[in-house]
Amino acid sequence: MKIEVLDTTLRDGEQTPGISLNTIKKLRIATKLDEIGVNSIEAGSAITSEGEREAIKAITSQGLNAEIVSFSRTLIKDVDYCLECDVDAVNIVVPTSDLHLQYKLKKTQDEMLEDAVKVTEYAKDHGVKVELAAEDSTRTDIQYLRKIFKATIDAGADRICPCDTLGILTPLKSFNFYKQFTDLGVPVSAHCHNDFGLAVANTLSAIDGGASRFHATINGLGERAGNAALEEVVVSLYTLYKDESNERKYETDIKIDQIYSTSKLVSRLSNAYLAPNKPIVGENAFAHESGIHADGVIKNSATYEPIMPELVGHRRKFVIGKHVGTKGLNNRLEELGLEVNKKQLNDIFYKVKDLGDKGKTVTDTDLEAIAEHVLNIEQEKKINLDELTIVSGNKIRPTASIKLNIENEEVIEADVGIGPVDAAINAVNKGIKSFADIQLEEYHVDAVTGGTDALIEVIIKLSSGDKIISARATEPDIINASVEAYIDGVNRLLENK
Amino acid sequence: MKIEVLDTTLRDGEQTPGISLNTIKKLRIATKLDEIGVNSIEAGSAITSEGEREAIKAITSQGLNAEIVSFSRTLIKDVDYCLECDVDAVNIVVPTSDLHLQYKLKKTQDEMLEDAVKVTEYAKDHGVKVELAAEDSTRTDIQYLRKIFKATIDAGADRICPCDTLGILTPLKSFNFYKQFTDLGVPVSAHCHNDFGLAVANTLSAIDGGASRFHATINGLGERAGNAALEEVVVSLYTLYKDESNERKYETDIKIDQIYSTSKLVSRLSNAYLAPNKPIVGENAFAHESGIHADGVIKNSATYEPIMPELVGHRRKFVIGKHVGTKGLNNRLEELGLEVNKKQLNDIFYKVKDLGDKGKTVTDTDLEAIAEHVLNIEQEKKINLDELTIVSGNKIRPTASIKLNIENEEVIEADVGIGPVDAAINAVNKGIKSFADIQLEEYHVDAVTGGTDALIEVIIKLSSGDKIISARATEPDIINASVEAYIDGVNRLLENK
Repeated sequence: MKIEVLDTTLRDGEQTPGISLNTIKKLRIATKLDEIGVNSIEAGSAITSEGEREAIKAITSQGLNAEIVSFSRTLIKDVDYCLECDVDAVNIVVPTSDLHLQYKLKKTQDEMLEDAVKVTEYAKDHGVKVELAAEDSTRTDIQYLRKIFKATIDAGADRICPCDTLGILTPLKSFNFYKQFTDLGVPVSAHCHNDFGLAVANTLSAIDGGASRFHATINGLGERAGNAALEEVVVSLYTLYKDESNERKYETDIKIDQIYSTSKLVSRLSNAYLAPNKPIVGENAFAHESGIHADGVIKNSATYEPIMPELVGHRRKFVIGKHVGTKGLNNRLEELGLEVNKKQLNDIFYKVKDLGDKGKTVTDTDLEAIAEHVLNIEQEKKINLDELTIVSGNKIRPTASIKLNIENEEVIEADVGIGPVDAAINAVNKGIKSFADIQLEEYHVDAVTGGTDALIEVIIKLSSGDKIISARATEPDIINASVEAYIDGVNRLLENK
Repeated sequence: MKIEVLDTTLRDGEQTPGISLNTIKKLRIATKLDEIGVNSIEAGSAITSEGEREAIKAITSQGLNAEIVSFSRTLIKDVDYCLECDVDAVNIVVPTSDLHLQYKLKKTQDEMLEDAVKVTEYAKDHGVKVELAAEDSTRTDIQYLRKIFKATIDAGADRICPCDTLGILTPLKSFNFYKQFTDLGVPVSAHCHNDFGLAVANTLSAIDGGASRFHATINGLGERAGNAALEEVVVSLYTLYKDESNERKYETDIKIDQIYSTSKLVSRLSNAYLAPNKPIVGENAFAHESGIHADGVIKNSATYEPIMPELVGHRRKFVIGKHVGTKGLNNRLEELGLEVNKKQLNDIFYKVKDLGDKGKTVTDTDLEAIAEHVLNIEQEKKINLDELTIVSGNKIRPTASIKLNIENEEVIEADVGIGPVDAAINAVNKGIKSFADIQLEEYHVDAVTGGTDALIEVIIKLSSGDKIISARATEPDIINASVEAYIDGVNRLLENK
């Protein structure tokens, strides 16, 4: 059975407290959603502001395959704004629970029904499709709910959407709840919120109950705990729902190999950080640390991975920590180009466990340092920092000088920059230019909270040719930390030559 | 019906890639879990390392109310290590699926059953309780699964736990799956993983199917996408599962008003950041931005909140952004001590929307600045920065001098610090000492990723007496940004006097 997907990242998702997307970002996300096969895109709520309408217009003018929808209240002016944006459909949201009618709107059930019918007719008269979304449906008297759906369907509504606005369904209730509307002759959409962590499960149960469309957001963005996560619903339907002959029960048009890249795009454009353990798309979704798990995955990834990460465009990762086993550790060392014998592997193994017991995480840099120590391959560093001097201020061009010792040769250089860190790195770069061809790929400072004397962790990614390494340093002085990490990284790139 | 909770934050949770907890942290978490009423605490896996055993021993020596459990494989040496740690019970993990037997262990079903029975008998002979956890149960032949459970129960196992190791159950399947083991005469535990975002739903369905215990972790920590989140399962049972007479169907011993503080503790000690939209405990779980929602919540919080935040020890938050309505905005302005008339409110409203349309989030500082501009209450700044000079380096004591203009008086000061930012703030503090009594409460630098010329955002929290304000500045130079934010904050504290 075909299930249609309405993505509401640009409406419910953008209502996430603290998230705001400008027109360029919205357009980029809409284009991507269209590319991956989303059937309908709720592009926003036209009434919100001039900027919101500008974004919706930018999206409707693209000629995308997906249907473009705007949110609308039961007000003629809302529909007019939607029409101005040239959308294909409006989602008319009608609060139906006594609580919403009484406290929010001070309207009777009859008044609300009248408004809903009037606005539905108005929208249909103006040539757009209408989905009637009943807000807070799961706390609404079921007789009234069916009555308002019937009345608006008679007025021309093309689809209905009973919304679980507060996320209070459970999977079993959701199945029964959505089933009640499948006899009304139009497609039923599921719209589930995640207040109790059940939005995805409730959406899946709604589909089992007969909903043929669902609303969802990328990464589960949305008000409060968010909406059903599109990627989790789609991949669950793809993987877990089979009939007796092991055929897929439900099909969507989503290209699931682009699930991960879509998630990353939305995460980056919205600045909404994903928890590492976010299902399907989190950084840990296919990461393995414990010895038992890593060992199993190396032998056969199906032992501890329900799907191959490539299926959703993600990748597998082995993480070294105190739960690592010797097999996972050896695997990682090999990936880092370090060959060790059994005794050396054991020595490294115990040093890693020791770090872990002290509550430390073990980065690749740490692991390389441990391995180098055990293997006695620590080489003389080619580049050593003798002196670093910085002058900066609000009316002074940030200036740095450095004295480096490069293979016993003294190199003195100075440079300016946009800030003192930039000046210092520029000076170092001048100094090493003739010895190494190094590109700074990424400069990262971890968030710091504390006093002005807190330790600052700087992580630098450098490349030379096709080699990429990361180096880090932790100091209370951000300039020293940056230069230290940078020179350490350069030395490691030169060593491996 | 009473449902028992086994918390496995210290075992499954600590296996989260990149997370490692030392003894002090584990003890702190175990104590808190005991305080909030967890029935069993899986304190770790005794075989892992010396440090792990030290932590388990530290926990068992506390005399907590909760039963203390260690993980064990079907190896006598694993049980011996558990016994050495003086635990009350062992969770014996037995891989049962063909995939795990064949690829991971190269054992037959009969060999595995024999091992399981032998180790169960050994543990029981040594006076500890045994829970038989069948790994990858949901891909195991059901006849074999029942056979191994029966054999180990005959050997003395006190409880059984069919594990959904890869998170491949769906809510309906989970109900039927767990129901199959309720006739074996011992309590059944649910153990669900979150690979498809269904761990909480599957745990709840397992309980509906007859499981009387469940395994869960705080914040849903664990390998890959993690385990069922304890807080979501417990609050769902409390809120959503009622019988016909509206009585709670299931009871737990968990003190749910401590759910939020427990989540924060684990998040802080594990350095595992929570997504803002994490259900129940995330920073946005009870946050409202959109006008419709905030307006509803102000009139009656039940319109858009399924539970009161205080129930779990959390708090409500109104966030100002482009979806704000005038009512929510006025509410926030009043909280900030700013009274505005209708015209002023509208002016502020449109400026906020305008910032939002540009893709900017609106902090309290921004809102205050907008409001001050509209209200024409922008005062002459008392303190102005004329000059800032910094000298620093790897062999130079970080030194800063400043020239301030304070109420038209010239003030010149210098100081040193542990780094250049510290030196600059120390110098500013010397300069303003006789004009204002200011405490730095918090210094925060947002994570930066980009080049060495990337913009750095500094947020500073300052107090004077019982007033606290936040100020921020964004510049490519961290020192200038810090000093700018600091002086801006001091001026705002002085203005409000």
